[in-house]
Amino acid sequence: MSTLISGGTVVTATGTLDADVLIVGEKIAAVLARGEATDAATFAAATAAADAEPEADMLIDASGKYVIPGGIDAHTHMEMPFGGTFSVDTFETGTKAAAHGGTTTIIDFAVQAKGTSLLATLDKWHEKADGNCAIDYGFHMIVSDVNDATLKEMESCIGGGVTSFKMFMAYPGVFYATDGEILLAMQQAQRTGATIMMHAENGIAIDQLVAQALAAGRTDPVNHGLTRPPELEGEATSRAITLAKVAGCPLYIVHLSAAQALAAVAEARDAGQNVFAETCPQYLYLTLDDLARPDFEGAKFIASPPLRTADHGKALWRGLRTNDLAVVSTDHCPFCFKEQKELGRGDFSKVPNGIPGVEHRMDLLHQGVVSGEISLQRWVETCSTTPARMFGLYPRKGVIAPGADADIVIYDPAATQTLSAATHHMNVDYSAYEGMQITGKVAVTLSRGRVVVADGEFRGSPGHGTFLSRGLNQYLI
Amino acid sequence: MSTLISGGTVVTATGTLDADVLIVGEKIAAVLARGEATDAATFAAATAAADAEPEADMLIDASGKYVIPGGIDAHTHMEMPFGGTFSVDTFETGTKAAAHGGTTTIIDFAVQAKGTSLLATLDKWHEKADGNCAIDYGFHMIVSDVNDATLKEMESCIGGGVTSFKMFMAYPGVFYATDGEILLAMQQAQRTGATIMMHAENGIAIDQLVAQALAAGRTDPVNHGLTRPPELEGEATSRAITLAKVAGCPLYIVHLSAAQALAAVAEARDAGQNVFAETCPQYLYLTLDDLARPDFEGAKFIASPPLRTADHGKALWRGLRTNDLAVVSTDHCPFCFKEQKELGRGDFSKVPNGIPGVEHRMDLLHQGVVSGEISLQRWVETCSTTPARMFGLYPRKGVIAPGADADIVIYDPAATQTLSAATHHMNVDYSAYEGMQITGKVAVTLSRGRVVVADGEFRGSPGHGTFLSRGLNQYLI
Amino acid sequence: MSTLISGGTVVTATGTLDADVLIVGEKIAAVLARGEATDAATFAAATAAADAEPEADMLIDASGKYVIPGGIDAHTHMEMPFGGTFSVDTFETGTKAAAHGGTTTIIDFAVQAKGTSLLATLDKWHEKADGNCAIDYGFHMIVSDVNDATLKEMESCIGGGVTSFKMFMAYPGVFYATDGEILLAMQQAQRTGATIMMHAENGIAIDQLVAQALAAGRTDPVNHGLTRPPELEGEATSRAITLAKVAGCPLYIVHLSAAQALAAVAEARDAGQNVFAETCPQYLYLTLDDLARPDFEGAKFIASPPLRTADHGKALWRGLRTNDLAVVSTDHCPFCFKEQKELGRGDFSKVPNGIPGVEHRMDLLHQGVVSGEISLQRWVETCSTTPARMFGLYPRKGVIAPGADADIVIYDPAATQTLSAATHHMNVDYSAYEGMQITGKVAVTLSRGRVVVADGEFRGSPGHGTFLSRGLNQYLI
Amino acid sequence: MSTLISGGTVVTATGTLDADVLIVGEKIAAVLARGEATDAATFAAATAAADAEPEADMLIDASGKYVIPGGIDAHTHMEMPFGGTFSVDTFETGTKAAAHGGTTTIIDFAVQAKGTSLLATLDKWHEKADGNCAIDYGFHMIVSDVNDATLKEMESCIGGGVTSFKMFMAYPGVFYATDGEILLAMQQAQRTGATIMMHAENGIAIDQLVAQALAAGRTDPVNHGLTRPPELEGEATSRAITLAKVAGCPLYIVHLSAAQALAAVAEARDAGQNVFAETCPQYLYLTLDDLARPDFEGAKFIASPPLRTADHGKALWRGLRTNDLAVVSTDHCPFCFKEQKELGRGDFSKVPNGIPGVEHRMDLLHQGVVSGEISLQRWVETCSTTPARMFGLYPRKGVIAPGADADIVIYDPAATQTLSAATHHMNVDYSAYEGMQITGKVAVTLSRGRVVVADGEFRGSPGHGTFLSRGLNQYLI
Repeated sequence: MSTLISGGTVVTATGTLDADVLIVGEKIAAVLARGEATDAATFAAATAAADAEPEADMLIDASGKYVIPGGIDAHTHMEMPFGGTFSVDTFETGTKAAAHGGTTTIIDFAVQAKGTSLLATLDKWHEKADGNCAIDYGFHMIVSDVNDATLKEMESCIGGGVTSFKMFMAYPGVFYATDGEILLAMQQAQRTGATIMMHAENGIAIDQLVAQALAAGRTDPVNHGLTRPPELEGEATSRAITLAKVAGCPLYIVHLSAAQALAAVAEARDAGQNVFAETCPQYLYLTLDDLARPDFEGAKFIASPPLRTADHGKALWRGLRTNDLAVVSTDHCPFCFKEQKELGRGDFSKVPNGIPGVEHRMDLLHQGVVSGEISLQRWVETCSTTPARMFGLYPRKGVIAPGADADIVIYDPAATQTLSAATHHMNVDYSAYEGMQITGKVAVTLSRGRVVVADGEFRGSPGHGTFLSRGLNQYLI
Repeated sequence: MSTLISGGTVVTATGTLDADVLIVGEKIAAVLARGEATDAATFAAATAAADAEPEADMLIDASGKYVIPGGIDAHTHMEMPFGGTFSVDTFETGTKAAAHGGTTTIIDFAVQAKGTSLLATLDKWHEKADGNCAIDYGFHMIVSDVNDATLKEMESCIGGGVTSFKMFMAYPGVFYATDGEILLAMQQAQRTGATIMMHAENGIAIDQLVAQALAAGRTDPVNHGLTRPPELEGEATSRAITLAKVAGCPLYIVHLSAAQALAAVAEARDAGQNVFAETCPQYLYLTLDDLARPDFEGAKFIASPPLRTADHGKALWRGLRTNDLAVVSTDHCPFCFKEQKELGRGDFSKVPNGIPGVEHRMDLLHQGVVSGEISLQRWVETCSTTPARMFGLYPRKGVIAPGADADIVIYDPAATQTLSAATHHMNVDYSAYEGMQITGKVAVTLSRGRVVVADGEFRGSPGHGTFLSRGLNQYLI
Repeated sequence: MSTLISGGTVVTATGTLDADVLIVGEKIAAVLARGEATDAATFAAATAAADAEPEADMLIDASGKYVIPGGIDAHTHMEMPFGGTFSVDTFETGTKAAAHGGTTTIIDFAVQAKGTSLLATLDKWHEKADGNCAIDYGFHMIVSDVNDATLKEMESCIGGGVTSFKMFMAYPGVFYATDGEILLAMQQAQRTGATIMMHAENGIAIDQLVAQALAAGRTDPVNHGLTRPPELEGEATSRAITLAKVAGCPLYIVHLSAAQALAAVAEARDAGQNVFAETCPQYLYLTLDDLARPDFEGAKFIASPPLRTADHGKALWRGLRTNDLAVVSTDHCPFCFKEQKELGRGDFSKVPNGIPGVEHRMDLLHQGVVSGEISLQRWVETCSTTPARMFGLYPRKGVIAPGADADIVIYDPAATQTLSAATHHMNVDYSAYEGMQITGKVAVTLSRGRVVVADGEFRGSPGHGTFLSRGLNQYLI
Repeated sequence: MSTLISGGTVVTATGTLDADVLIVGEKIAAVLARGEATDAATFAAATAAADAEPEADMLIDASGKYVIPGGIDAHTHMEMPFGGTFSVDTFETGTKAAAHGGTTTIIDFAVQAKGTSLLATLDKWHEKADGNCAIDYGFHMIVSDVNDATLKEMESCIGGGVTSFKMFMAYPGVFYATDGEILLAMQQAQRTGATIMMHAENGIAIDQLVAQALAAGRTDPVNHGLTRPPELEGEATSRAITLAKVAGCPLYIVHLSAAQALAAVAEARDAGQNVFAETCPQYLYLTLDDLARPDFEGAKFIASPPLRTADHGKALWRGLRTNDLAVVSTDHCPFCFKEQKELGRGDFSKVPNGIPGVEHRMDLLHQGVVSGEISLQRWVETCSTTPARMFGLYPRKGVIAPGADADIVIYDPAATQTLSAATHHMNVDYSAYEGMQITGKVAVTLSRGRVVVADGEFRGSPGHGTFLSRGLNQYLI
């Protein structure tokens, strides 16, 4: 099986090329100058170079379109257990939705329950995903129980291709780790080269503010935001950075939402510390005002950290330009409004935390290109190339280059679309971006050489996606 | 004419690939996965793809070697007039030396004399370079006479492929521009998209310190450094940044040498301003102690800004890692010790300013990879890809990709060499790095598809290099 | 002659005391606990202690009022020559107005004209002031012509009690000094212990913006503000700080108005550098909106640096609390609206620069106490004690303590007043604060033991004020 | 009883005065100019003013000496229970030693044990101190058990003159409070105007480092320092500042020892937050090298935070100059080397934490005046006036002014002494400053008008000292 994508503009993290891409099997076989040769001849020759059949199995005309490495969403939560319920996208529905939106790799989180082992947890998650994913996938490991056994197991996880470990300074009693536990895990990360990912909010202090709000009868969704002030994200971010400095390990701040946290990351990076951060589209486009929507509508927008005021969003766009925010992920964690979000009527703290988004990341960030917030290269870099390098997938993923997996998106920059629950493919009953107009749309998504989405239709299969054994963070020195 | 470079490790700004590179004519025709096809077959096929002759003109075995985009030295001064004398490398000798060291593009400076026009200056420099360069070259324009005519001519320069304009806060009476003149030029840069390059030292204050030193009989070369304190580079850098902010134009700080200046750049970059900076190998490896060498030897190391104490160098390496220093250039400006540097015996201020270096940049920075200061990707990025993007040459230069000029260096990371005036190819009677041991060495240099250096021998020709009409800075948003 | 001030609350820079103050002759003889002795007996006893006549010449009942050290306005311009005209307050009218407002010392500026000597200048200013002042006065020296003779004369000035030297980074062609000249003067300050005062705006760059505005027909007063962006005050402040660091001398930034400049001062102070700053009431209360008042009314508010947007004012109040702004002075420089300000109709750059204010500083800052911006102690500290220490007048001035000059103000915190040109005592035809309501008012002003203002009437005499030979800055270490 | 101190130089927080001080009873009755009157006559007159007997009970000749407000040591631990033992100075021995060293007020800490009430704790401490102190004393309250009852009791404490509450981010399992508990206490402080004092070290992380050191056999005293890196003090300081910002309360960082913590304090202060800090003489003079002294001698220097490297001490002196460090206290907490410190042989974590110092603070800081680190005024300000204002004792304490308590020290700046356990008055068997030469020595100490130390002899009585009911922090706005 071979495919030639011709006539498009290849967008990379460093610029654009007029070039054709030859796929043989699951891999990119060649990137070719667009010459005077006919497409057919080019194709014949290049397939020969790859020792493949000279006949074209498929020709894709990408004229007028971008040819980009498939998106990598490094932060999703499919079928995540949460207080007796689960996030509503399965690995199947979630990865299909991702493919529709031009994402060809997700890195989901295996979630250690207290008292269980990391490896058993990993097995469990393998079981959930295996045979169900439409695109390739990897795992991070959430460590919620730090002890000698867990620390030892981190090494096995790394051997098993899970090289990043998420910890929480929030959610006391659930995922929360003490600074001492964090330090121990960070020391282990230092020894092994693993990266610690951090949910950086001071959950201990926040819990007091939440209790006070509830006691005072402030129970509406907006209080979710008001009880999690940005200062307490900034504080936790600074603290995580200091602990990582003491331990000497790489640190990756997940879903950064507050200007204070961004400032802490920028300062550490200026000082040369191995500190990285991601933000999510919801923090770029949505605000505290959405949390304050009437009739409990605000619950749709409850996630942690919470949506912030607009000035924070402005700072985050700047952070994306300066690379203090290196990655855009979604923290996709969908709960239906009915029956799930509604669990928190009368008590915002009972609303399942999470916003659906895996399908729209590429579009929402392309919209940032359209509106002049970021460059075309930066779009590809933050949504694909950098996540690949950060999480040890490069050059298998995140780049259009010979030898790489043929995870390729043909993106039509001129198409328009309107985001809506009525049309999206995520298994959730609302859209956080309902009615939003977007310029740009996926034309074709290929996963390991195979067309999985074209003309808005899913043409792949759930079992196509394979587990990605990842290496270490490639940004370190 | 076609060439296949096979078996090497292609190093890019984002990582490494095992891939072969096919050159047809002056361009890269394809980057190919290394498959099961024989090299010969691969070659035949790929040339066919490029509509070229199927016979291999040349096969280059790059096994065990790096295949990198040719170095781009964005800051050189060939045949530069200076106080009645000239820097001793002509465009011919200088570009040959560059090619020996793996640099395939230089951007030299056309120097406007007071009272002359920019376009006439540009013509003059075209005349100097035309037909003499062994590799491709572009020009920046030094603006030393800001007036309505000059400002208007900036547009024509841009039209002529000269899109960056250097100004001086140092050298009163020679190149010095007032803050008002700088502001005017920056406003013009804002209108046209050009980049202002700045020599940021407070020359007005420095001249007083120099006069005081001379009056006090402190005439040895070390006083060149002592009268140019790093604070006055930091100050000028901050000032340039503020003026650029007021004008709204891109700013590029040349030859940054002081930690204070680095801090100013980092702060501006964190704030999202279009501010960029380069440093040079001499500031990474040499120190004020070299300026203090006895018997007037220190004069060999006189350049401005001066060499600093070692802590500054340490900060600069960090800046290269954090990207606050985006580019490494050489500020190559060679004057012979005899007769030229010696003009300043008894008066350090009369020593021609400049250190030779165009030949050794790639080696010296690769040494930084060897010693763990920077990553392999960062070596390629700072020495080739970023200068190409910064100065509007990308993707013609700075990348190994189809359609790009075949400016390629085969670099042997295991070879060793000793730097010395006895063996270098620059037309100057001393080496600033005499006796320094380097791991890594150029095996082959290709310029636009032609081998110009191999086995340490120059195989190109002076007239091979062509003028590069450059576009605008590609980092802006 | 002796006087007892009894029953008041003595406010000092560190707190408040219930104490009586005995004045004998021109000096404070004692500060006395309010005991069970009758006032008359206390008085008798204390005069005896001072070897004075036991009869009370005067008893002042300060019950319910503050007893504070007389205000020190360290920045005034009486009879200042400016473009063929003069600021309209003479030393007589200006000091009378000052006394009305509770200011008992001014430090005015002797203005060196280019080509003249500092000592001749000082003589000239002595002549202007001698015999005309209602309160004590000192001089700073404006150095506008830096040369060997001038530098040498600085020593004589210090011998003559003029220990602070003002320089300008603004006003090219008039007072402007180059960075080299500034450095030379700063080095001389370092040697002698003198303080350099700096008008920190980048006048060279500003002049270009002014020329552009005028050329574009933007001639209204508001353009005065728009052509002097706060960034260019921040820049000049940073530059002055760096030059002072290189020279090693104390630096005092006059009339700081921009948040950027405040940040630069704060950073230097955190680093332990001898850097100090003042602001003025107009920057705390008035804004760019005032400059934009219609019908050329904006001209009343033209001074340099210009009025800023309200956020800057908010930052300045904070700076007063943090002591990054140590002093409040007025930069009193009154020009009448008619005939003087009107010189600039059609060309804002021709409007004489200056805002009248010497009379209202104590009231305006007390208003800051009323509104909760600063504490009572801080009012006294910024308006009296700190200027005394900063400019070598302490403990003769700036404190209520035995041995100090009896410059004392009895201030009624409960009285109210409305500021207006109709009632003020400055010799100028408008008030920048017309109609403003103030809580607090001077009840009595004493200068060296003599009542000069009481019940809103001037009871002093023009010749009462004497020249103050000042020592060095007392904040240095 | 009346006393006249004549001929001395009164040093205040703002400068020096040549003045005499009249004491009548326990209070300062007058501060008098030194006039032509004979001392006797002055004395007679002034006593009359104070309605006292005209005969001098006592004349103290302070010629050639400083007359300063008695020192206020805002951080002592007398008879503090610690792991089954007690700090060895009783309120009697400790306050006598303080008096010898020119300190006339201590503020000690009442220590709430878990499960007990604040008021019962306060009663207990009143009992300990009552009738035993040679000088006046107040209490802070250590809150180690945050609950609704405790929070409510904070109000009663304030009513009882205890207006500052200390919490610990260190010492898990002992005094440690969680961030949530800290936030609750801070909110209560916000409501009541109280000040939260913070021991800012990340004890949770430190405990892991300590456990690792012990497990690895690193048991010597120096490991106390190595397991408490300065980063973890900086982190905790930043965190406390953020929590105080969220709560809106005043914060006072105790015994600041690390440059990182100082930077955090400076940043918050620049931003106008009510954040204050103290350091202690041991952090100015002693270093990690002392902790590394052989033969377990290092144990003498174990306190928390630990002694740091010398660069931190240098930063702390700068902080004292910039006022980012406002107060010098001692954290006096003496444990004998024999039997007490020795408890930690073989396990540094078992060494009782504390360094004796209450006797030497005034001398050690005067030494800083001698060596040029701080000014004379700053000595008085940081050691007396500021603690009085910070802890609600001003103007009763901390100032030489009529109405103030006559707590006065006559200090001989020319005397010399050698610090030694052989001669000190603290009840502890070693001196942390053994053999150190000091210039300057207390001549006379008066407490509330009574001479308690003269000629190196204690002349007071244990029951003389009274409890000081304190008001709120006077620095707030």
